[in-house]
Amino acid sequence: MADMPALLFQVLKPWRTAKAWHVALSGGLDSTVLLHLLVQLRQTHSIPPITAVHVHHGLQAAADTWPAHCQAQCDGLGVPLQVVRVQVQAGASVERAARDARYQAFAALTAAGEVLLVGQHRDDQAETLLFRLLRGAGVGGLAAMPHQRRLGAGHLFRPLLDVPRARLESYAREQGLNWIEDPSNSQTDFSRNFLRHEVFPVLTRRWPQAAASMARSASHCAEAQGLLEELAKQDLLAADSASDFAWLGLPSLALAPLASLSPARQRNALRHWLATLTSLPDTDHWAGWDALRDARNDAQPLWKLAEGELHRAAGRIWWLSADWLHQPAAPVPWVQPDQALVLPGNGQVRFVGDIPDGPLHVSYRQGGEVMALAQRGHRDLKRLFNERGVPLFARGRLPLLYCNDQLLAVANLGGLDCGPCGRWKLQWLPTSSDQGLS
Amino acid sequence: MADMPALLFQVLKPWRTAKAWHVALSGGLDSTVLLHLLVQLRQTHSIPPITAVHVHHGLQAAADTWPAHCQAQCDGLGVPLQVVRVQVQAGASVERAARDARYQAFAALTAAGEVLLVGQHRDDQAETLLFRLLRGAGVGGLAAMPHQRRLGAGHLFRPLLDVPRARLESYAREQGLNWIEDPSNSQTDFSRNFLRHEVFPVLTRRWPQAAASMARSASHCAEAQGLLEELAKQDLLAADSASDFAWLGLPSLALAPLASLSPARQRNALRHWLATLTSLPDTDHWAGWDALRDARNDAQPLWKLAEGELHRAAGRIWWLSADWLHQPAAPVPWVQPDQALVLPGNGQVRFVGDIPDGPLHVSYRQGGEVMALAQRGHRDLKRLFNERGVPLFARGRLPLLYCNDQLLAVANLGGLDCGPCGRWKLQWLPTSSDQGLS
Repeated sequence: MADMPALLFQVLKPWRTAKAWHVALSGGLDSTVLLHLLVQLRQTHSIPPITAVHVHHGLQAAADTWPAHCQAQCDGLGVPLQVVRVQVQAGASVERAARDARYQAFAALTAAGEVLLVGQHRDDQAETLLFRLLRGAGVGGLAAMPHQRRLGAGHLFRPLLDVPRARLESYAREQGLNWIEDPSNSQTDFSRNFLRHEVFPVLTRRWPQAAASMARSASHCAEAQGLLEELAKQDLLAADSASDFAWLGLPSLALAPLASLSPARQRNALRHWLATLTSLPDTDHWAGWDALRDARNDAQPLWKLAEGELHRAAGRIWWLSADWLHQPAAPVPWVQPDQALVLPGNGQVRFVGDIPDGPLHVSYRQGGEVMALAQRGHRDLKRLFNERGVPLFARGRLPLLYCNDQLLAVANLGGLDCGPCGRWKLQWLPTSSDQGLS
Repeated sequence: MADMPALLFQVLKPWRTAKAWHVALSGGLDSTVLLHLLVQLRQTHSIPPITAVHVHHGLQAAADTWPAHCQAQCDGLGVPLQVVRVQVQAGASVERAARDARYQAFAALTAAGEVLLVGQHRDDQAETLLFRLLRGAGVGGLAAMPHQRRLGAGHLFRPLLDVPRARLESYAREQGLNWIEDPSNSQTDFSRNFLRHEVFPVLTRRWPQAAASMARSASHCAEAQGLLEELAKQDLLAADSASDFAWLGLPSLALAPLASLSPARQRNALRHWLATLTSLPDTDHWAGWDALRDARNDAQPLWKLAEGELHRAAGRIWWLSADWLHQPAAPVPWVQPDQALVLPGNGQVRFVGDIPDGPLHVSYRQGGEVMALAQRGHRDLKRLFNERGVPLFARGRLPLLYCNDQLLAVANLGGLDCGPCGRWKLQWLPTSSDQGLS
């Protein structure tokens, strides 16, 4: 087997052109070995500048001595150290809050083109997998920690993830390194400690290769998860057809291509799509999707999720974030109609072409509105909406332009959004839209 | 929670129209409860006829009393019992051999339209998952036991797979049932027993829901595995284009569509394709695929696997089973050319149309053969093969028709397979071909 610095050099090769390597230094065995190896590497190879970062949670009295320990280490090695103090909210899951705070700090100081190197090893990977299994995770969770991922404007990389802890320890002893016992695994991290001290010793008694096998399963799951995402992207692409209401600027998918897939494949595609929009429902709550998909057309079906709602309308499903579910405040007078009017909580409107005579204001639908149409006389607004298939969820947010009590126009709806002879047009840009005013 | 017979009736609903339900009866807790529940169900519902099957391995002295125990049980319940004695090869993995022998016996007696019901429960499922994890399994392995699968001409179903063992035990005590402690988990099954008695008690000390969570992970993996198979089928379909050498009757795929996929997706498709052909290589040996795919065209690349070889030729990959890799015996005299000639280890040949004058025999290529062609004079056989792009691996098996020393024809190769003026044609049907002689 190659010696440790050579091995590290191999796995770090793809990151050699980074602008900087930051080492997440807890002062424990793993990060101490990592830092030491990198300093060795620096003597014989051309590598990016190395700095160390220690995050101080202040959760335990003992931890107060760790920054000084790290400083002494770094001084001895000639590596600049940055100590970041973070506040952790004590709560249901202190270990989770501490981890989140740590990674937020790391993300903040990892600039574009820079890499944060963290010392997690193969035993950590096995532990993560088993921990996720004890929470009933799916393939994505069982993939455990990725070797690399985006972090802040740069990347995070785990160069020791395939190295067993025992090897790090023997290296540390050979080199006469000093480290703090278990600093990153604070006493609050009961589950992790239980796995490490109670479960793994029993497993390795019969299966000495337990951690290696589990890490192999984790990488199989990571590969599988990548394929499931490829499949999801392919299925979402097929459902990403043109919509008459694209100007709503809402994430939406055509229902028919989705519904033609196997139920498992529908869930896979939706999980992928919803991942950027909301926390995902657990297994038991996917019945909400079946109900949304299969409801009658006139049933106004919707599926409530953690950060919003999925609605079905006009042959599509639409993601409405919590913002979209509030009725915006009205009326809003339009004093300077030569400029765009900002609608509180509902984007903005503007005129294209001329400007109608005032006084103007924008309001929203209450029910019972009637609109005078050239050649068609007076029509109920509801009927006009129905004729155009306007999704129900959008009706209450469509800006209505009034001159005194007279409904002049409905923004963005063809035939209803313009003045006589097309002299002006009322254009609405909802909050959630990605499109800039052109 | 519903009572046990009602619960069982629910999960068995899809199997109500089966011709028979066979219960795999070990005499242990699980199968004893299952049999008792079914007998209860029979009193109130219309269900298929129930029989029980006990497989006797004869691996332990204690087991000799089990058939009698099962017989007494079945007599008491009015259920016919069949005891099947099997021989287990003592070897490296007795537990595996015993399981294989057991399932072979079950398969043999499960006829079309019949269902074998087995008593495995949620704790067994969790144990299977953990066991697979300790061997570094992929997603398919981590899916653990399927609820149902094909078995022999019928099906196997596990109606209790979502039920915790504790629930079976409390039911058995309520009903005053007798069972043998651990009969199906013979003493030889050390790994399983270690998990059950040493590992799970530690896990459930901190995570009482450990088995439930693991079973949930297993079902996530089963769903994911189904999707990976859908993806594989889709990718294989794209590589299943027409081939000039389809008549070889060999499994083959077009290389270009495969090679255009991501490496992980290539492996997924190939794993699926190879699964029916050979034992699969482990992770470390997939480099053989990369070499086969990327070799130069003139490098005659091949990838040796457990039960055969994958060759690359004519823009495709070809599966050659071990049979195909032996040079067949020759020459074979063709005494009755009005009838098909069986070629030892190489299928058969026959004439379509007339029959050429004899004496005839079939032989195989040795090198240096020359063939007289109408209008083209004498040509090297090698050059004729090259002109037609005949895959190298097929050249030594192509039947050559001789009259004395004169090479008259090469079977199946257009322009070389027929007599003067097309009076006859030599047709070869290789061993591995699925096509019947039409």
